[in-house]
Amino acid sequence: MYNHTAYEMGANRCAIRDLAEYGAARAQVIGKENIFDFTIGNPSLPAAPEIADAVRDILENMDPLQAHSYTSAPGLLAARQAIAQDLNCRYGTDITPDELFLGCGASPELCAVFGALAVPDAEILAIAPYFPEYQPFAQAAGCKLKVIPPDVPDFQIRLDEVEKALTPNTVAIVINSPNNPSGVVYTRQTLEKLGALLTEKGKAFGHPIYIIADEPYRELAYDGVEVPFIPTIYKDTIVCYSYSKSLSLPGERIGYIYVPRQATDGGALYTAVAGAARSLGHICAPSLWQHVLARCAHLRPDLSDYDRNRKALYEGLREAGYAVAKPDDAFYMFVKVPGGDAEAFTKKAMEKDLLVVPGDSFGCPGYVRLCYCVSLDKIQRSLPIFASLI
Amino acid sequence: MYNHTAYEMGANRCAIRDLAEYGAARAQVIGKENIFDFTIGNPSLPAAPEIADAVRDILENMDPLQAHSYTSAPGLLAARQAIAQDLNCRYGTDITPDELFLGCGASPELCAVFGALAVPDAEILAIAPYFPEYQPFAQAAGCKLKVIPPDVPDFQIRLDEVEKALTPNTVAIVINSPNNPSGVVYTRQTLEKLGALLTEKGKAFGHPIYIIADEPYRELAYDGVEVPFIPTIYKDTIVCYSYSKSLSLPGERIGYIYVPRQATDGGALYTAVAGAARSLGHICAPSLWQHVLARCAHLRPDLSDYDRNRKALYEGLREAGYAVAKPDDAFYMFVKVPGGDAEAFTKKAMEKDLLVVPGDSFGCPGYVRLCYCVSLDKIQRSLPIFASLI
Repeated sequence: MYNHTAYEMGANRCAIRDLAEYGAARAQVIGKENIFDFTIGNPSLPAAPEIADAVRDILENMDPLQAHSYTSAPGLLAARQAIAQDLNCRYGTDITPDELFLGCGASPELCAVFGALAVPDAEILAIAPYFPEYQPFAQAAGCKLKVIPPDVPDFQIRLDEVEKALTPNTVAIVINSPNNPSGVVYTRQTLEKLGALLTEKGKAFGHPIYIIADEPYRELAYDGVEVPFIPTIYKDTIVCYSYSKSLSLPGERIGYIYVPRQATDGGALYTAVAGAARSLGHICAPSLWQHVLARCAHLRPDLSDYDRNRKALYEGLREAGYAVAKPDDAFYMFVKVPGGDAEAFTKKAMEKDLLVVPGDSFGCPGYVRLCYCVSLDKIQRSLPIFASLI
Repeated sequence: MYNHTAYEMGANRCAIRDLAEYGAARAQVIGKENIFDFTIGNPSLPAAPEIADAVRDILENMDPLQAHSYTSAPGLLAARQAIAQDLNCRYGTDITPDELFLGCGASPELCAVFGALAVPDAEILAIAPYFPEYQPFAQAAGCKLKVIPPDVPDFQIRLDEVEKALTPNTVAIVINSPNNPSGVVYTRQTLEKLGALLTEKGKAFGHPIYIIADEPYRELAYDGVEVPFIPTIYKDTIVCYSYSKSLSLPGERIGYIYVPRQATDGGALYTAVAGAARSLGHICAPSLWQHVLARCAHLRPDLSDYDRNRKALYEGLREAGYAVAKPDDAFYMFVKVPGGDAEAFTKKAMEKDLLVVPGDSFGCPGYVRLCYCVSLDKIQRSLPIFASLI
């Protein structure tokens, strides 16, 4: 007498979390230093000292009733103002606080946006490799997720496949750039072409096709690679942002949804997003972290550690003979496995206490994902193991 | 091209939040001291100093990577251990951490439990007066909510009406005791009778009928009134708890779901709850607050302020001639309105800058709810206004 889909979702669990939990358990047995866990995107860069300072300041100087009370459903005005100002300074936009809705991280934000777009027979496209949780989120919202095959080996977007997949039922395409798991940024050119295609098809279908930009990695790009702000390229873009990675606060569940007023039906869509969030019980993002954002929304991560890791791992893997997607961003590297069977490679690696995630989970077999948000020492000590697996 | 149910949910909004936001805006105009806002259950008791101490200790002595990282989906073991120990000490139970699932407050917890029980044609009963958000939560989960009329004027449970409403499709009855908005605790006798009825009907239907105990007010009871721990009375009880009120942390979104292993299908149901939570994007309760719980789950609120408010308001209203449900718990008082039209009374009160919530929102017309988590001074100054409205 329980919902079997929910049961399956609970029993099968997220493959990534399962591997990470195996890693944590195994670390208890053989020692943390002997497990090479490249599975989960928990930032290895600690939160900036300004974050702890802001929390201390709030505890010290703010009435606790104010610090910890319910906020309005869209979130504290001061936090939304700070976020709008930060975006406007960087992108030359004129975003106002009433286009922003604070959320408990990108996952529930995506659930709310999918719910807001869930018209009858709604279809949402995702580009492989993609975050596997899009599937249960779309299903729970009542949308069908259709996956576009990967653009191997560059991991941009196969627009020919997008064009084939678009139907009058397509309400949106969810994209994740900088991308997890490929570690690649969609170029301005790719995004402009995608925008042009969606504009054209939207006209033909008589309704907009929204881009849902899932972008918790926006601030994590290296070597001066441009990460375009997608609403400035394609107006019908809804952004789901999280501070999990950029402020190294993944467990604290804080981010925002940006629904531009100039998007088609922008105002109504914002209302529908708020309504969908309400139906899911997402009624207030954690208030302490909203107050922190009001003070810290402008902070940027110091990427030097990740960058050093990135170079060491990329060079080491290439030297060992692996083919690796060019890692421009985030803290992910997407590696082609010898023989092409990522599940088998993952098992072989596991026997050597090296944990990676098979690309199958992301709709892209033949690859494994490595999260290089680990210590440099671990990367260096893992390279001989990688070499032994090729 | 958006979901109209979600739009309506966003546009109509929660009546209580609307009133509270009106109150905040009005306070800007006439001064905070001149608005008598009895609408929203934001605790007026500040969080205990131990809470801020725990946060400071975590910032000072814990690796920020650990403090702010993703936890496992069920939540930190240390937090679940502290909660289990606290419950076991108080209720003589033998709850283990693997029966607990940490959540972002009672709202998303209820959504997850409704989702876990959402079999085809599932019906969930609620007892008026009830928390109005049960309705959108049930609808989003795909369950039908059926409301049992109120047991006026005692606000226990009309078991005759429950019996009439039970059908083979009934999967659960959601109860909220101590009750918002009535301020009444369901007695042990009421709960035992309810349990006996559900056991009998469950046997007849061939499946369990769960009690979903929504109990954020469990620790807020006065005059030594007993608040029974429902799983010890009826084994098929799932508890949704929140620390919003007991630790005065409503904005921080932290609580737990308890699915007893001895409940029918207990293990599978826990898994289904975890799966439903995952589908809703509720993948990790805020990690800092999980660490705080590991230290502070045993804290109890000092109720003396609320109790003083309760007595002042109760006595004042009775003196003015109002009929009031006996306020045993929480910080709510449920007041019968003269003339019987709560909406009209609410409007008349609003003109005098006195904000109350009509009972219609809770499925109980003819009453208004007052949250007495305000200052004693406000209560005293509001009494002449109440008197003028009778």
